[in-house]
Amino acid sequence: MSQLDAILSHVDASLDASLDRLFELIAIPSISTEAAFAPDCRRAADWLAAELSALGMDASVRDTTGHPMVVGHGPGIPGPHVLFYGHYDVQPVDPLELWTNPPFEPKLVPQPDGETHILGRGASDDKGQLLTFIEACRAWKNVTGSLPIRISMLFEGEEEAGSPSLAPFLDAYGDELRADIMLVCDTDMWDHDTPAITTMWRGFVSEEFEIVCGDRDLHSGMFGSAARNAAQVMGTIIGKLRLDDGSVGIPGFYDDVTELPEVMREQWASLPFDAEKFLADVGLTTPAGEAGRSVLEQVWARPTCEINGVWSGYTGDGFKTVIPARASAKLSFRLVDGQDPDRIRGLFRAFVESLLPPDCSVTFKAYAAAAAQAMPLDGALLNKARDALSIEWEREAALAGTGGSIPILGEFKRRLGMDSLLVGFARFDNRIHSPNEKYDLSSFHKGIRSWVRILSAFSETPA
Amino acid sequence: MSQLDAILSHVDASLDASLDRLFELIAIPSISTEAAFAPDCRRAADWLAAELSALGMDASVRDTTGHPMVVGHGPGIPGPHVLFYGHYDVQPVDPLELWTNPPFEPKLVPQPDGETHILGRGASDDKGQLLTFIEACRAWKNVTGSLPIRISMLFEGEEEAGSPSLAPFLDAYGDELRADIMLVCDTDMWDHDTPAITTMWRGFVSEEFEIVCGDRDLHSGMFGSAARNAAQVMGTIIGKLRLDDGSVGIPGFYDDVTELPEVMREQWASLPFDAEKFLADVGLTTPAGEAGRSVLEQVWARPTCEINGVWSGYTGDGFKTVIPARASAKLSFRLVDGQDPDRIRGLFRAFVESLLPPDCSVTFKAYAAAAAQAMPLDGALLNKARDALSIEWEREAALAGTGGSIPILGEFKRRLGMDSLLVGFARFDNRIHSPNEKYDLSSFHKGIRSWVRILSAFSETPA
Repeated sequence: MSQLDAILSHVDASLDASLDRLFELIAIPSISTEAAFAPDCRRAADWLAAELSALGMDASVRDTTGHPMVVGHGPGIPGPHVLFYGHYDVQPVDPLELWTNPPFEPKLVPQPDGETHILGRGASDDKGQLLTFIEACRAWKNVTGSLPIRISMLFEGEEEAGSPSLAPFLDAYGDELRADIMLVCDTDMWDHDTPAITTMWRGFVSEEFEIVCGDRDLHSGMFGSAARNAAQVMGTIIGKLRLDDGSVGIPGFYDDVTELPEVMREQWASLPFDAEKFLADVGLTTPAGEAGRSVLEQVWARPTCEINGVWSGYTGDGFKTVIPARASAKLSFRLVDGQDPDRIRGLFRAFVESLLPPDCSVTFKAYAAAAAQAMPLDGALLNKARDALSIEWEREAALAGTGGSIPILGEFKRRLGMDSLLVGFARFDNRIHSPNEKYDLSSFHKGIRSWVRILSAFSETPA
Repeated sequence: MSQLDAILSHVDASLDASLDRLFELIAIPSISTEAAFAPDCRRAADWLAAELSALGMDASVRDTTGHPMVVGHGPGIPGPHVLFYGHYDVQPVDPLELWTNPPFEPKLVPQPDGETHILGRGASDDKGQLLTFIEACRAWKNVTGSLPIRISMLFEGEEEAGSPSLAPFLDAYGDELRADIMLVCDTDMWDHDTPAITTMWRGFVSEEFEIVCGDRDLHSGMFGSAARNAAQVMGTIIGKLRLDDGSVGIPGFYDDVTELPEVMREQWASLPFDAEKFLADVGLTTPAGEAGRSVLEQVWARPTCEINGVWSGYTGDGFKTVIPARASAKLSFRLVDGQDPDRIRGLFRAFVESLLPPDCSVTFKAYAAAAAQAMPLDGALLNKARDALSIEWEREAALAGTGGSIPILGEFKRRLGMDSLLVGFARFDNRIHSPNEKYDLSSFHKGIRSWVRILSAFSETPA
């Protein structure tokens, strides 16, 4: 039996023990956005540090102004130096009454199709996913007596809260944390059977703005038609943000947009993806994005502008014939590689100001911004990981995009100069952030095995 | 001294007693929309019935399914038969902390300009105004021993609640209530010194609608650009409701609009009205209605569409990158003579449906509707009233419009065939429906004198 086969056998034989550890971690209600759970966040950090110490790593829990960070360093073994990143905090569990099982009492639930669900808040995002990597390291350590390469790990406890402590932490400990590449396990498979490496993710600009017309709400009987109506002005502006062909109507918005590389386009066309089903699952039939672009392009490779909330005037029961003096909206842009978030924010604001009628003013409130990123497709580590995944899952691993934004990866790129390799085993239906979050037992088991194979491939790579 | 002069002198000499009665009525907190005040509404009705009895009228309080009606009939004196309508109920007083004096403890407050304010909820709307007519009748009765003409009165207690009992009451008692003309004292002067008869008021259609796209809110990272966004669809529709020139964008909306009679247009142009000040008082400089129409035309004589409220998606603190599946709006139309409310509602609904993209549905909820009305400008009673007002105020009385809607007058017209004559002494700054409502003492005093003169003129009119 080769060393690799021995380690994989050990993973198979130890699965129940690995599950026990996952259940221990899920049972800690480390909700980062609710102050009452701060002690639980620290408990989760302590738990992880103890696990890293058990792997022979130099592990510590480090205070921040928020929830603590966990940092661990393995010994200096030849080969590439990787920094594995994950987060131990989880989303709130409201509405609790929709859970079929208490969210912090994890449970295995066999399914009719032979799959088994691991139920619990954080089972997928990100406790189950990050443990696939730790358990792979444990198997290496148990079978061979050491880790395969030089491994550092960083776990934060504020990912679900926007990672406010991460940038200062990277600034303070950048030299200590810098590695050849960052590994992350917080993404999805391509589909149920096809593994994926996520190589591009969209950027993000979020903004709130308020239109004010005149100095008070007015009665539509007294002023109707002559007084400027802020809700009408807001509607007119929103109406011009997206054009009839699905594109964004802000002048200059597409100036720096990078087209999808041909290799990605071809791969996406060849891989199984049922656009009709993707939409039908949420009650839709017709893509609303740019005409002539596939659904995958629309959600992964094209920028967009989405209204996230709007409010103005009287919104209660019954009727009030008010002419609202104020109207507000929250909106966000998803950006693609090439688009500068600050420039997009500026174009948007200029666009709104250009549409303001007399007697109206606008105030803007900036929320988060992050640039899109696209990882190089020709790196040695990327290709080794892709091959390892393809072997484990007996399907060629896909190079995927994600329509979401991963601002923390931009921080690592900007502050530490590090690219990231995103390998995740979550599935589309894992209900992350929702009641009854689950992780498939096959995701967990084959996820551990996948990392064993990837680490094996990396250990044969010159640094 | 002529009879008329004797009556007017009696009014002047009795002003304190008239004020005492107004204070008694204001002190009854007859808020119709709050159930706790139902006994107070009945108390106000009883108080009015007693006053009518004191005038020698056959007065009664009549139950409805809501607050009671007060009906009084004077003796059958030759001349036209008039029905005076008013309402004894008042608006709620929230926010109470903004009142400088308790709302149901009326108080006289002298002003620097020599005017005196009668402070209190209902001081203007409609207790002060309706009492001008009762006190005029009292003066006639006290001086001459009888009322000048055949007078009936009807007071309701649900005007501020949409008059739900009025239509059934008119159906039940129409033959008893029908008169040659209805008199109403619930409107404004043209300006501080110029009396006015309101001869036209706009109609009204109010509507709420909800756009639904897909079957749940979605994450903009996962679905952004491909999924239909209900808030975007709503914005696009609102954006097309009003065009850049201020007109309403619904096809057919202007089909039946009647142009302002030339006599009104000329009069409005000649009378003092400071459009700049009208707008500046509420922080505006530029009329938002149809280009080429004066501000008075825009608010009194042109139809409009106003968004009264809109809501969709996430509207709380912070940010959620949701693609809303639902968006709602409340909106109302003000209509002018000629426009049919049902037709306008239908045109609006068809317009929205024509703009719906795939995967979206809309539901409509109808609120109130009422047609606009324009009273004939050539009636003998109108001209007599106008002359009487011009003498009392030493200014030619204006024929005014109002941008508001007076649905009850439509009920009287439709169910009893009666036209209305609207003579009011309220001023623009009376803060009706707001904290610190006031009625000017000069409105009250000269209002009583005005009705004395009008009744005198009517008494010389053949029936």
